[in-house]
Amino acid sequence: VEVSQIGEFGLIERLRGKITDKGGNVVVGIGDDAAAFGIRAGSCVLATCDAQIEGVHFLRQNASPKDIGRKAVAINISDIAAMGGRPTFMLVCLGLPPGTDVEFVDELYAGFCAECELYGVRILGGNMARLPERISIDVFLLGEGEKERLLLRSGAGAGELILASGWLGDSAAGLYLLTHPESDVPAEARERLTRAHITPTPRLAEGGLLARLGKVTSAIDVSDGLVSDIGHICRESNVGAEIWEGHIPISDAAQKLASAAGLDPMHMALYGGEDYELVFTVKEKDFPEVARALAAQSGLPFTVIGRITRPEKGLRVIREDGEESHAGSTGWDHFKKTP
Amino acid sequence: VEVSQIGEFGLIERLRGKITDKGGNVVVGIGDDAAAFGIRAGSCVLATCDAQIEGVHFLRQNASPKDIGRKAVAINISDIAAMGGRPTFMLVCLGLPPGTDVEFVDELYAGFCAECELYGVRILGGNMARLPERISIDVFLLGEGEKERLLLRSGAGAGELILASGWLGDSAAGLYLLTHPESDVPAEARERLTRAHITPTPRLAEGGLLARLGKVTSAIDVSDGLVSDIGHICRESNVGAEIWEGHIPISDAAQKLASAAGLDPMHMALYGGEDYELVFTVKEKDFPEVARALAAQSGLPFTVIGRITRPEKGLRVIREDGEESHAGSTGWDHFKKTP
Repeated sequence: VEVSQIGEFGLIERLRGKITDKGGNVVVGIGDDAAAFGIRAGSCVLATCDAQIEGVHFLRQNASPKDIGRKAVAINISDIAAMGGRPTFMLVCLGLPPGTDVEFVDELYAGFCAECELYGVRILGGNMARLPERISIDVFLLGEGEKERLLLRSGAGAGELILASGWLGDSAAGLYLLTHPESDVPAEARERLTRAHITPTPRLAEGGLLARLGKVTSAIDVSDGLVSDIGHICRESNVGAEIWEGHIPISDAAQKLASAAGLDPMHMALYGGEDYELVFTVKEKDFPEVARALAAQSGLPFTVIGRITRPEKGLRVIREDGEESHAGSTGWDHFKKTP
Repeated sequence: VEVSQIGEFGLIERLRGKITDKGGNVVVGIGDDAAAFGIRAGSCVLATCDAQIEGVHFLRQNASPKDIGRKAVAINISDIAAMGGRPTFMLVCLGLPPGTDVEFVDELYAGFCAECELYGVRILGGNMARLPERISIDVFLLGEGEKERLLLRSGAGAGELILASGWLGDSAAGLYLLTHPESDVPAEARERLTRAHITPTPRLAEGGLLARLGKVTSAIDVSDGLVSDIGHICRESNVGAEIWEGHIPISDAAQKLASAAGLDPMHMALYGGEDYELVFTVKEKDFPEVARALAAQSGLPFTVIGRITRPEKGLRVIREDGEESHAGSTGWDHFKKTP
């Protein structure tokens, strides 16, 4: 059955029964001109949006519709995690070719719902429109956070340490494997890398922990690529940064894929993006306390990967021999603050 | 200059300087992982989204980029108006072909900003992605409202009167004129009708007034078409309705276009949609008070256009001779509540 056969309202009706839009602070759920909800006294509302477009962000042959739905939600939850907040409500604008199978939309929503359930998010509404050529998913995610404890991009200071959660480059390695399935890597490595790309895990618990610690001076999630994302911190904090290649956490799986395919694993880690790890800065004096808290309360490794510098130093990647590397591809100039 | 030449970040940088994202309750504006804002104590947050897609909702030859931007915002403000709320913050997801002129995007944003300024909305963020074939604009609009005074679709009761603001059918007439410019109508009529279609006016002040009056039992804005939208009220309130053709407010301009083009003006008013007028219900005993307040505080005409009935009567359009008309095209069956 195609979407065109049951129509917009038929599709909405079909999906509405599967979605939990009541409870919590919901005042008005799906089915009115707008949704309405309350927030806890003292909290502020967080709002973010991010898109997944067929052929641009995903290929239907590489991921199930459910996983496409999960990722569309996960990448937005990652933004709320990077603010130290808690995701609450979601709206979704779908663009669909009229010939899309209704079962595809069902599974896409099953993915939205599964990911939302995992992180306590309610779907409160959305919109569907005809988009003839490809599927487009615009997720609009709301959250809550403590005003005084939000993790911003703008608080980093020279001399502070840069930390990263988990591993960098797995997602880029996974994308390579999806487009080059013939690459000779062990099954577990293939599974780990492709999952990292197809259904990334937002570091929500870790973001909340960092916000509660109150020692993080800036934070971001790795979506565009480590160097580019640290560039955002530099731009918003008006600082420079050096990233230490020898310290970048690269998984054995990514190393194996890089060896098998003749790729540079460091390049995937620095520029690949879509890892959705948290990158954040702490004062050196606070590092022991932060490291202890993270070790006690998170199952993830956290690694010091560099240091914030004065702004005139720019954003530099430092090789293990002390030389600057990849300087031409940092894109730092494009992020300069406009006067 | 094309979008592809300055890139995503170049474009964001270019637009950011033109947008006011500070002040009011804004805690974090554009440039972080998510925006953050506070709300007034006792208020609840409203959230809605609606799309405008090139070739589906608009044609570039029919409207300036600025007007396309204005309408994308206005139709969302209309949803907040239909809830009796006040719009506050907006995020926008743009899909753009890489060959789009940067000047087009500038003008689109100028339209966003102009409409936002008119209604007190701040743009707090968004997202841009490559969409090869056409421009897509997904607006996410947030607002505030008093929990106890929201205008819902779900409160209508049998016997109540149905009222509409303004005029119905102007937008459909305007769309016809845009696609049939040779139609012989006076210049003022052409101007009025095409403006109604290209830059509709959300009835925000009127929605706020109705919410404060506290006498409105249900409300919606006319986007899908009068009959279809009253159908939404019927569905959410579990009632039926009769719409009185002889009472539908149709402008002289729409009458003139219909005569000149050999169209049925009533059909445009009932099924055309995109008028963004408010349609709402009041108990008959409250009608005099509501009518007086509207006459005193709004420059718009308000017209009684029908009556809510028991659900088993369904949704019916009644001609001046008392017969049912257009019964086959109400689409009422498709809106039946699922068991």
